[in-house]
Amino acid sequence: MKQVVTFGEIMMRLSTPLNYRLTQSASLEVNYGGGDANVAAAVAGLGVPAAHVTCFPANELGQAAVQSFQRLGVDMQHTVYSGKRLGLYFLEVGASLRPSKVVYDRADSSFANLDPAAFKWDTILQNAQWLHWTGITPAISAATAQATADAIAAARRLGITVSADVNYRRNLWQYGQTAQQVMTELVAGCDVVVCSENDAEDLFGIQPTPGADNKFASMGEQLIARFPQIKQVISTRRKTQSASHERIKGMLFDGSYTETPYLDITPVVDRIGGGDAFMGGFIYGSLKYAAPAEALSFALAASALKHTIHGDVNLVTVAEVEHVMQGNTTGRLVR
Amino acid sequence: MKQVVTFGEIMMRLSTPLNYRLTQSASLEVNYGGGDANVAAAVAGLGVPAAHVTCFPANELGQAAVQSFQRLGVDMQHTVYSGKRLGLYFLEVGASLRPSKVVYDRADSSFANLDPAAFKWDTILQNAQWLHWTGITPAISAATAQATADAIAAARRLGITVSADVNYRRNLWQYGQTAQQVMTELVAGCDVVVCSENDAEDLFGIQPTPGADNKFASMGEQLIARFPQIKQVISTRRKTQSASHERIKGMLFDGSYTETPYLDITPVVDRIGGGDAFMGGFIYGSLKYAAPAEALSFALAASALKHTIHGDVNLVTVAEVEHVMQGNTTGRLVR
Amino acid sequence: MKQVVTFGEIMMRLSTPLNYRLTQSASLEVNYGGGDANVAAAVAGLGVPAAHVTCFPANELGQAAVQSFQRLGVDMQHTVYSGKRLGLYFLEVGASLRPSKVVYDRADSSFANLDPAAFKWDTILQNAQWLHWTGITPAISAATAQATADAIAAARRLGITVSADVNYRRNLWQYGQTAQQVMTELVAGCDVVVCSENDAEDLFGIQPTPGADNKFASMGEQLIARFPQIKQVISTRRKTQSASHERIKGMLFDGSYTETPYLDITPVVDRIGGGDAFMGGFIYGSLKYAAPAEALSFALAASALKHTIHGDVNLVTVAEVEHVMQGNTTGRLVR
Amino acid sequence: MKQVVTFGEIMMRLSTPLNYRLTQSASLEVNYGGGDANVAAAVAGLGVPAAHVTCFPANELGQAAVQSFQRLGVDMQHTVYSGKRLGLYFLEVGASLRPSKVVYDRADSSFANLDPAAFKWDTILQNAQWLHWTGITPAISAATAQATADAIAAARRLGITVSADVNYRRNLWQYGQTAQQVMTELVAGCDVVVCSENDAEDLFGIQPTPGADNKFASMGEQLIARFPQIKQVISTRRKTQSASHERIKGMLFDGSYTETPYLDITPVVDRIGGGDAFMGGFIYGSLKYAAPAEALSFALAASALKHTIHGDVNLVTVAEVEHVMQGNTTGRLVR
Amino acid sequence: MKQVVTFGEIMMRLSTPLNYRLTQSASLEVNYGGGDANVAAAVAGLGVPAAHVTCFPANELGQAAVQSFQRLGVDMQHTVYSGKRLGLYFLEVGASLRPSKVVYDRADSSFANLDPAAFKWDTILQNAQWLHWTGITPAISAATAQATADAIAAARRLGITVSADVNYRRNLWQYGQTAQQVMTELVAGCDVVVCSENDAEDLFGIQPTPGADNKFASMGEQLIARFPQIKQVISTRRKTQSASHERIKGMLFDGSYTETPYLDITPVVDRIGGGDAFMGGFIYGSLKYAAPAEALSFALAASALKHTIHGDVNLVTVAEVEHVMQGNTTGRLVR
Amino acid sequence: MKQVVTFGEIMMRLSTPLNYRLTQSASLEVNYGGGDANVAAAVAGLGVPAAHVTCFPANELGQAAVQSFQRLGVDMQHTVYSGKRLGLYFLEVGASLRPSKVVYDRADSSFANLDPAAFKWDTILQNAQWLHWTGITPAISAATAQATADAIAAARRLGITVSADVNYRRNLWQYGQTAQQVMTELVAGCDVVVCSENDAEDLFGIQPTPGADNKFASMGEQLIARFPQIKQVISTRRKTQSASHERIKGMLFDGSYTETPYLDITPVVDRIGGGDAFMGGFIYGSLKYAAPAEALSFALAASALKHTIHGDVNLVTVAEVEHVMQGNTTGRLVR
Repeated sequence: MKQVVTFGEIMMRLSTPLNYRLTQSASLEVNYGGGDANVAAAVAGLGVPAAHVTCFPANELGQAAVQSFQRLGVDMQHTVYSGKRLGLYFLEVGASLRPSKVVYDRADSSFANLDPAAFKWDTILQNAQWLHWTGITPAISAATAQATADAIAAARRLGITVSADVNYRRNLWQYGQTAQQVMTELVAGCDVVVCSENDAEDLFGIQPTPGADNKFASMGEQLIARFPQIKQVISTRRKTQSASHERIKGMLFDGSYTETPYLDITPVVDRIGGGDAFMGGFIYGSLKYAAPAEALSFALAASALKHTIHGDVNLVTVAEVEHVMQGNTTGRLVR
Repeated sequence: MKQVVTFGEIMMRLSTPLNYRLTQSASLEVNYGGGDANVAAAVAGLGVPAAHVTCFPANELGQAAVQSFQRLGVDMQHTVYSGKRLGLYFLEVGASLRPSKVVYDRADSSFANLDPAAFKWDTILQNAQWLHWTGITPAISAATAQATADAIAAARRLGITVSADVNYRRNLWQYGQTAQQVMTELVAGCDVVVCSENDAEDLFGIQPTPGADNKFASMGEQLIARFPQIKQVISTRRKTQSASHERIKGMLFDGSYTETPYLDITPVVDRIGGGDAFMGGFIYGSLKYAAPAEALSFALAASALKHTIHGDVNLVTVAEVEHVMQGNTTGRLVR
Repeated sequence: MKQVVTFGEIMMRLSTPLNYRLTQSASLEVNYGGGDANVAAAVAGLGVPAAHVTCFPANELGQAAVQSFQRLGVDMQHTVYSGKRLGLYFLEVGASLRPSKVVYDRADSSFANLDPAAFKWDTILQNAQWLHWTGITPAISAATAQATADAIAAARRLGITVSADVNYRRNLWQYGQTAQQVMTELVAGCDVVVCSENDAEDLFGIQPTPGADNKFASMGEQLIARFPQIKQVISTRRKTQSASHERIKGMLFDGSYTETPYLDITPVVDRIGGGDAFMGGFIYGSLKYAAPAEALSFALAASALKHTIHGDVNLVTVAEVEHVMQGNTTGRLVR
Repeated sequence: MKQVVTFGEIMMRLSTPLNYRLTQSASLEVNYGGGDANVAAAVAGLGVPAAHVTCFPANELGQAAVQSFQRLGVDMQHTVYSGKRLGLYFLEVGASLRPSKVVYDRADSSFANLDPAAFKWDTILQNAQWLHWTGITPAISAATAQATADAIAAARRLGITVSADVNYRRNLWQYGQTAQQVMTELVAGCDVVVCSENDAEDLFGIQPTPGADNKFASMGEQLIARFPQIKQVISTRRKTQSASHERIKGMLFDGSYTETPYLDITPVVDRIGGGDAFMGGFIYGSLKYAAPAEALSFALAASALKHTIHGDVNLVTVAEVEHVMQGNTTGRLVR
Repeated sequence: MKQVVTFGEIMMRLSTPLNYRLTQSASLEVNYGGGDANVAAAVAGLGVPAAHVTCFPANELGQAAVQSFQRLGVDMQHTVYSGKRLGLYFLEVGASLRPSKVVYDRADSSFANLDPAAFKWDTILQNAQWLHWTGITPAISAATAQATADAIAAARRLGITVSADVNYRRNLWQYGQTAQQVMTELVAGCDVVVCSENDAEDLFGIQPTPGADNKFASMGEQLIARFPQIKQVISTRRKTQSASHERIKGMLFDGSYTETPYLDITPVVDRIGGGDAFMGGFIYGSLKYAAPAEALSFALAASALKHTIHGDVNLVTVAEVEHVMQGNTTGRLVR
Repeated sequence: MKQVVTFGEIMMRLSTPLNYRLTQSASLEVNYGGGDANVAAAVAGLGVPAAHVTCFPANELGQAAVQSFQRLGVDMQHTVYSGKRLGLYFLEVGASLRPSKVVYDRADSSFANLDPAAFKWDTILQNAQWLHWTGITPAISAATAQATADAIAAARRLGITVSADVNYRRNLWQYGQTAQQVMTELVAGCDVVVCSENDAEDLFGIQPTPGADNKFASMGEQLIARFPQIKQVISTRRKTQSASHERIKGMLFDGSYTETPYLDITPVVDRIGGGDAFMGGFIYGSLKYAAPAEALSFALAASALKHTIHGDVNLVTVAEVEHVMQGNTTGRLVR
């Protein structure tokens, strides 16, 4: 089978153990993750060949990050080594009505300072069937936006499916170009996008038709109208009860609207990467199932399971996801 | 007071810490347990003398297993040392809609290869008032089935109460005899059995009378009719909400039907051994209370508390169980 | 800004990790706390200068206790070093329907044996705006009761607000004087008291007027009538669902009655110090807000957050408390 | 085989992990030990039946202490439950030129306040062959000194060998009688004593003959002359190189003088209990070997191994001790 | 560059933390390793492409073992999944004069029961330059011996260098054929062998010429004479000072004799895999350096470093090994 | 007593536990330290009032760093909050012949970007008796060099003793000015300097007189001649045996030459901060002892003890240092 290829930054995550606050933690747990790399690892875990493309400093931390994805079967051979530091973030793990909190320390990372010319996309993608990226990548720097554009252009040339999680993070866009301008160009080259109503409004000025019953469908319809390459718009919806209790459903517009029932997750073991697991599940589901509704259902089950797993990455098998997808949510002991 | 004696395999349990998955655990927690030994430890903790009879390899792991039950006051002097390995199982601890998962590695253990002649039951039971075994023991090998039969026969000779948790595990029965045949013979010698409707059907072909209001009572009635030695049939019923949330009640048929209200346990700290705690509680309750309904109520409270305790064994006092039995389930801080 | 000064014993708390029972814990977590010191630390964390006054043995444990509050910005310069031991308590952390349990080992501590003359209250309080104490302090020994009386007298001389958490613990009062007699004298010098209906009855013989709709208001009214110095009577009310799930609201009587809505906390990370966080929040709130209802609302939000934080002390910022106070209780991830 | 019985206090030991200082340890490791109980556990581990007699509070800590020795096969059935607290000590683990440090918190323990009449020595010792005690026990209180005297008197009546580790700790003797007076009476009833030259001088005023080549032999000779019941005087000698490196040898005077070569232990894993392991080894060796020199050699090897084992107790087998006793000190991997 | 390919069993290693004894360890650390797989991982870490060939059960433990080597860049694509269990061993980590101890539990593993026909050696080795195996592999079962013979035959056909670590473990050879017979056939196909004087005598009846100054050279000479394919005989020599202190040197006979100076390692962090690191270093060194003495020197430095690293595998870079190889053994802080 | 004031960057240190390599550490231990702040903490621990002046980001990490020094009694009230990130470094802890390794990630920290005008040195130093800085501070940026110059100028104005640890780190000086130029100006204002022969040559071009018996004295003489303000030149000398074994002595030139004997430290628990402990000890010693040789001896003992303590800071008492200073280096257990 051909590869799913993802592109983006991998950061070291330093998280507090056992719901400790950052100021009281004498040790921090180390994980590596990124919104796109997590998708590669998720699909690799589901048995689909996957590669991730990124840029690391040539030191022990870059090596550890590579090993951490290599371990999960992600092909890391395209890693470019340049620059001086690995981006970091500190995660304070909340509980109940106290939110988890992220302190970023990612400025001036190797990835932010990458050289777009160092990535030979036609070579990288020669054995690929799918390219996935997130809106975080072009938000980091002009260089990373350029590399994203290059990747998409190559994918289009090679006839590869392109997906994006638009994931608009206002704070990140600080290098001079606007998210609206950059994302409009990039999203135009995509077949599948994860996009919430808020992101559609903020990035593309798309608002649901006043009085529309189904705001997501209304948004999706307009998005597809604006970007003819897009065939599917998907998203999760969260009814967050507390830092320890999530309710999520999946939504899909591809001309018509489909949604899944809500799944409850309580307690939440690790909230980070839930959206990436959804995307990874949707890619897998799209490759396996004829019906988009089944891909959506698989994606939602995968995302729900991710909330029960430590770290950024969804460590689940197809059988486990399908078990939940078929309605087995009671977590009864398996012998 | 005379001893409660149990017979069966004790395995090393290697469980993942903090809901980690097996593939991501850099360390595993060590506990020792077995469906019958857990009963011995439970009653010892409640102040009733208890002994467990088993077979271990003569190495550090056998020694550690002995010490782990000796610590709880279980008389381990009847341990036979022979064979080459301690049975193991790996426990991946789930959460929410992700189930806990057991990977067994128990084949060819010292216990499976025991020599029935090495156990001198008349001596072992000379100071006993109660013998308890589970359906796992005769499932392991012809040798362990023979030893179980020998123990029951000796108990009957000595006028000792015999109880069994029939606990049918299809995968285990692989040595050539059928569970139906072996268990029918063994259960015939019992006074008290833990048996669910499913197990009654699978093992003894007993189905609730069509249209019966109370399926458990119907099954219990037939079981007692089939096996005249049996006076009491008990069971728990689980309404598992998730790997982190159980609801359980206790049921008893001894001619008439009694049940307890449901108890909620959330979060579940450790699901393993909940049934053994129920049995241990029922033995203690039967020795203490005149009314079987009180024994059942004590057993259910004991089982509920077990779900909040790490490891296979129920580490609780009589006062703690009675506190819950009396309806105090709010867990209010005790100073 | 002037200091909030608290007086009382700080104990070493040795608690079981991960809901282990005391008999199975191979290690114990170390924290330091006390009902009044926790208030000092809470207000220091909210940006108000705070000092705590206490007595420690001149050994490594006393030093560790000092450092643990100094770390949080509490001025510990008034610590008196005398006596032989630091009071201790063991905390077994419960879960679900199994309660947490405290085993005290505080007899004959340095604090119990303090010399009241060693505390120069006029000096200690010269830069203070508020003095807080709890009913635990005068319960310990005649010496600690005397020191409490001295502190209150000095505060009154200096025109400083005095608050008390009456916190009646029957078991503690063993040195010959009755709680009723001692507390009546001490509470007479207070402006603000935390007092539940039960404590009002046990300590002061105050019972709500028969048939009163609002028992707390009725009690508060009588308390203020009895002790004219008191202007505000406050309390939390708990509807404990389990050791892992609390529901709490705040109540205030200051001539008229105010209460907050209930807040749910599930899971509870650490129940100890919830009341101290409420008091700390109320002091901060009283200094900041004109309306007592806002102080109460701040206090309740602070207390709720404390239940999600390990250790005795409430490690939260003003912004975090106000976030909850404004109704944001879903714990949504903060980036 | 008949039992070796020991009598004395068991304390909870709270030690710092990984050479942390007390003021920086966020958790403490829990062990239970006592100079005499450690001997019981050592001989039980070597296959000799052993019982320990002591007094605990009737709470979780007393229960945990009982379980911790029960686990090692020590008969704890003679435990008396009375009094209010378990004695504690804090152990800061040193390294290199920084010493380990003990902070005691043992005053007013259950053991210190025991009732001598609660111990029925003729019953306790009816199945014993050896009684062992240490000089710490009579140092604690008049009550513990009386109980020691009672135990020795019963042992003499029953013809049981009595041994003592005189272990003079100046700080402990605070209840009014002098160590000199009390120990003289108690030691008079002993067959075997562990006694260093310093202790002989401090307790009994015995000084080596001026100019004696062998000070230990000179002391031993005088001790035996003074106390005719004594047949063997033994001791270890330490050339402590650092907190991480010990050199020890064993010495014996029983009319003639014997010593072992020095053994080097580096690194030292846990220094506590090295002397108790020596005594336990000597008891075992005396029961097994005809030649006292072999008993001494076994004792020294046992003590050396103890320095490599966490906790107070020597967890070694006869084969392991004999391996070192035969000169195998290179620690070559055993497969 | 072409691959170095290794073949053999990978076991789960469960080791005690912090020098605890097996009977006192509440948790065990998980590593995966094998005498040949460790060589693959070592050379991969040094930048040489490497693959390992083995057989695992199709369960979570097999998956974890695969991931653990995949993480280090070892190509695991040739893994065959069959059989029922992963071989295990328990490692009790010693210190000072207490040896480390291994308790094996490897019988009846997936690897032992492998089907030789499942390994297509011509395909597996098509991109290889070197095949390495150890004497443990043919010792396990007739099937594993056959697969080893098949691999060597294929390598010879393809003109690939073959090396073996003869590593004679008497206890393993239990399937009916003798080590002498099997190993003689297999070693005949090798170019490089690790062989000690003891192993040469036990396996091939080769004894150093009486009176030979250099026993290793004498043995090597005879070995090469007996097996003309062999060009180099190498070995380490250990002067084990204690479980915490090793002294090792390297020896080489390839017609003439070369040796390295001794290196001291104290403390030893992890003794397991020291020999495999030596072999991995020698393969790397042989590929890089013209002079065998340099390869030997590199191998010894690599092995010495391995003793300072947790786990079975040597996690070092070429620069780090060369640093030690050049005489920098003082471990001076690198900034 | 007046304060010792230090100025410089505090970084978060993320170190591997138990000698793990960075690539294999699933968690990292958190400490905070800096070459000058460590001196403040050391003297505070010895009972001398101390303040540290620095610049932090206004986030949780800055808060944690403040608390970590506040805990040790260091006055942190002069902290300036500005900039965006806390400098970090990763510490891989070595063992034996494998060195510890530091990976810095300190570029663009809050401290590097500080505004010199934000520090009001006349106010900060108004209650000071001693100012200490290290050569790391002016190496970071023009701003930090300016602030250092400002501090020294203020100290000179106020008649405060100034000390510096010249500590030349070639890699740091990257902002355009040379170390030689900047340090020459700054050192001219100092009374006491820590300077090795290497640093004297690199920074000031000072070489020991050819043929000089005592190179340190020769260097010291020239340094004092060049910088008339300097009265004392001190340094440690290391004979590093391995990452686990240091030998250090102290040297002093103040017109005449003094040195201490070597002290051995094995094992080394934590090498970082050994020099800072030396400086802290020398400041304390200078304030306490008339004879500089005693100050030096105290400094060396303090530094030796630091090597046995986790973290950057020397957590020792005066009594402990004096104990070693008096020759007690055997680490014999203190009860």
